Amino acid sequence: MTATRTRAHWGWGYEDERQTIDAVREAAPGIAAYLGMGSADVELPVALDDVVLPDPRVQVPAALAGITDASVHARASHALGKSYRDVIRGMRGHFDHPPDVVLRPRDEREVEAVLEWAAGAGVAVVPYGGGTSVVGGVECAGDGYDGVACLDLGALDRVLEVDPVSRAALIQAGASGPVLERQLGEHGLTMRFYPQSFELSTLGGWIATRAGGHFATVWTHIDDVVESVRAVTPAQGVWESRRLPGSGAGVSPDRMLLGSEGTLGVITQAWVRVQPRPAHRASRGVRFATFAAGAQAVRQLSQSGLHPANCRLIDPVEAKLTGAGDGSAALLVLGFESTDDGAARVLDAAMTRGLAICAAHGGTWEEPHGKAAGGDAVGTWRDAFLRAPYLRDTFALMGVLSETFETAVTWDAFPAYHATVVGAVEEALGGEGQVSCRFTHVYPDGPAPYFTVMAPARRGDELAQWQEIKDAAGAAIVAGGGTITHHHAVGRDHRPWYDQQRPDPFASALAGAKAAVDPRGILNPGVLIDP
Amino acid sequence: MTATRTRAHWGWGYEDERQTIDAVREAAPGIAAYLGMGSADVELPVALDDVVLPDPRVQVPAALAGITDASVHARASHALGKSYRDVIRGMRGHFDHPPDVVLRPRDEREVEAVLEWAAGAGVAVVPYGGGTSVVGGVECAGDGYDGVACLDLGALDRVLEVDPVSRAALIQAGASGPVLERQLGEHGLTMRFYPQSFELSTLGGWIATRAGGHFATVWTHIDDVVESVRAVTPAQGVWESRRLPGSGAGVSPDRMLLGSEGTLGVITQAWVRVQPRPAHRASRGVRFATFAAGAQAVRQLSQSGLHPANCRLIDPVEAKLTGAGDGSAALLVLGFESTDDGAARVLDAAMTRGLAICAAHGGTWEEPHGKAAGGDAVGTWRDAFLRAPYLRDTFALMGVLSETFETAVTWDAFPAYHATVVGAVEEALGGEGQVSCRFTHVYPDGPAPYFTVMAPARRGDELAQWQEIKDAAGAAIVAGGGTITHHHAVGRDHRPWYDQQRPDPFASALAGAKAAVDPRGILNPGVLIDP
Repeated sequence: MTATRTRAHWGWGYEDERQTIDAVREAAPGIAAYLGMGSADVELPVALDDVVLPDPRVQVPAALAGITDASVHARASHALGKSYRDVIRGMRGHFDHPPDVVLRPRDEREVEAVLEWAAGAGVAVVPYGGGTSVVGGVECAGDGYDGVACLDLGALDRVLEVDPVSRAALIQAGASGPVLERQLGEHGLTMRFYPQSFELSTLGGWIATRAGGHFATVWTHIDDVVESVRAVTPAQGVWESRRLPGSGAGVSPDRMLLGSEGTLGVITQAWVRVQPRPAHRASRGVRFATFAAGAQAVRQLSQSGLHPANCRLIDPVEAKLTGAGDGSAALLVLGFESTDDGAARVLDAAMTRGLAICAAHGGTWEEPHGKAAGGDAVGTWRDAFLRAPYLRDTFALMGVLSETFETAVTWDAFPAYHATVVGAVEEALGGEGQVSCRFTHVYPDGPAPYFTVMAPARRGDELAQWQEIKDAAGAAIVAGGGTITHHHAVGRDHRPWYDQQRPDPFASALAGAKAAVDPRGILNPGVLIDP
Repeated sequence: MTATRTRAHWGWGYEDERQTIDAVREAAPGIAAYLGMGSADVELPVALDDVVLPDPRVQVPAALAGITDASVHARASHALGKSYRDVIRGMRGHFDHPPDVVLRPRDEREVEAVLEWAAGAGVAVVPYGGGTSVVGGVECAGDGYDGVACLDLGALDRVLEVDPVSRAALIQAGASGPVLERQLGEHGLTMRFYPQSFELSTLGGWIATRAGGHFATVWTHIDDVVESVRAVTPAQGVWESRRLPGSGAGVSPDRMLLGSEGTLGVITQAWVRVQPRPAHRASRGVRFATFAAGAQAVRQLSQSGLHPANCRLIDPVEAKLTGAGDGSAALLVLGFESTDDGAARVLDAAMTRGLAICAAHGGTWEEPHGKAAGGDAVGTWRDAFLRAPYLRDTFALMGVLSETFETAVTWDAFPAYHATVVGAVEEALGGEGQVSCRFTHVYPDGPAPYFTVMAPARRGDELAQWQEIKDAAGAAIVAGGGTITHHHAVGRDHRPWYDQQRPDPFASALAGAKAAVDPRGILNPGVLIDP
């Protein structure tokens, strides 16, 4: 089951899926013309053979030799996440903090053995799933430690048990989206959890970072899918909750691991809710003259109790960028789905009512023709959505800054908040490039806006350029009452704003909890709290 | 706004709502005949004047004199929760661990002042909302402390702010159900959160204990309604989260307070989601030949995505007990509701599909006549549901043991689990009395079964009698893989089973968190973890 394909040592994905440099060169003029930015002068990334890393500082005991890889490819490919700054650094061969060693346990006992060794040796351990963090979650400088070990869970990738009656499955933490879906599919089941990182990211990573998934309403985060979690702690053994559909027995043990970002324990497996494939789906693209008008419709939809599976409002700039519109209108992708084969009329009624709400706010749409009923457009959008990370590497090579950030805020604050955040980013952009917005998830009390920034890169100075934009956005988000992240996690990159956002006594409590289970502070130090 | 009505010093509710002893005597023969148990020989409860309490051990500083009450009524009425064993002890005048003093702060600064004094004086503090705990959550022996202070939040009972755009409200923690609903009603809004303790229990108590509310699916617990929480900690000041519709910024600060049962901080206020009153409601009573057949229908309903507001399956014994049936069939109360005035057709379609699922499992029902559409029956049921705690005091006086316990378990395990738990209780009952079951809440992966035990009391020995039953039930629950509580909380009474259920490393982490914010361990010692 274990993947044998080779991951790229920088940027996104598998070597066999990536564009060759020749292909990038061929495509660059067309892309530049389409975007109105970027250069046909494509940068040549630093080849793996030319990457120079500092010598490993740690000596792994013989007992762990079978799961140890200290090769340049292993260390470089595990050194960075997948943010824009990671892509830029990776393509230039700048691996600032490579792990000294990559350890790839094949079972939970080997996870325990790694933690035991690391605690004794004073080595920091970075739990690693798909390595798709965009917030510095897997990059550890290891200051104050005698080294850094990357604990890659990728070999723990099996669906261990399926309960078709309760619709749940026990899955190992290192299983990526496609790998776990393939195994669930053999039982006619699916998690139907599609973060943009789906191709590479893993169940354990989703849980550790509170990832956001497919559904725009109700079950927005992995939190809502998890039935129980099992993790290994450095000092207190295995942390495993009961498999329960619901409970009110004190503080939720699962909710303390959800979002712990590798600081409390190494998640090894979890029971999650699964379902059959949808029996019915319906989708419409609804146009609004402005993003604000669309937002009013989405607010009413979010408070209607209709619970659309998809309710993604895309502003005119982003609609044009993704080819979903011509830039003259905002687009709402409104979708309903059901796994119940008798639910056709319920879905029809829900769509009819949802469209009536849209119409009341000036929305217009075309009735679908043919049986696809919007499904094709949605499928196309989803494929593009999941391919986007590959495209971003191409952008970086041709001098296009491309990055996103996301947040959530209440409806009452949203109009001013949106204006302020966009204004701050535009000021930081200095008249070049663009910032666009879509809603990824919505709640009765507010949306989760997702911003995309595209700009001509200051080549060679991209990190500073992006930091200026990020600083402006972060300050506007915190001042405006939003969250610094809705589903990208905190990591190390979001700490300046997270530290302002989270309650101080809570940070003390979390540090106290960590000290109890990880007294030497070896687990992912610097993420969330200072060790 | 502060309530001026007098709470009973034992049992449920307000003096002016309670049955007089003469009324109980008059009703007893009829109740005994109806139940087939209990005696017309009604016990005379110990009057307040005859209650003897130990002298208070603590001296409250002069600065707190204005909020201090050390009267026998205050101490006795705050000494116990509302479980069966609390009712029995209260009516006999046995207040085993009365607080030395009751403090009733009028604002958050006075809460802080109480904590500051108590930390310095070595006094344990029991945060107290409505005092409706059925798990020993408010009864503190105070071993190892120089006294016990009850911190009654009842004077903090105002709705401070309403945001009609985001449909949210900021409400003080001491507001009871009716008190907060009255204030929200002035804005045309409602929380629509109805635990059985609604009349007395408070928002802060709901949050501290993860109370279960009105909705049978999706938003089952108060957890799903909370937007942000504010609490005062003894050592680290105010713990207040941002008001956010959703977030993925690390471990959720709110989820660490939810279910903390007063051990981490004193909850003073919270932002919660509110809504207009439902524009449409529909309800049907569906009969099934057996509870098992009904459970199969409910499983399919819970996995259908229809999200009924009400989906309470009542077994034949309980249907007869509550007058909802004749004992020959199980009854499913299936309800849909929507706040969206355009949702009539969506509700119709959902009900039609829901009933089709019921029919496929042998369910039968009568179409409603008149416009009530089942609403009257549901209203009657809800009124009876909310009045039940008063009735239980009557039962206790006439020698009827009446108590409940609740749990949750996955669907695959449920049939055997139900049989085992019922069997264990019946064996403990020794052929007298009965145990019945209903589902209060259901999830795609399992139900939350709620058991009611009625039996002739061994008068004078009720505590031991109930403990035998509870021990049998608790052992069966833990062995069967369920949770010792779905929404009644852990308190002190559930500790033996909770300690087996919760992950040990999590308990260490929680103790570490507590030590950080409450280093002297003054907050509700003995609940959840040992201080």
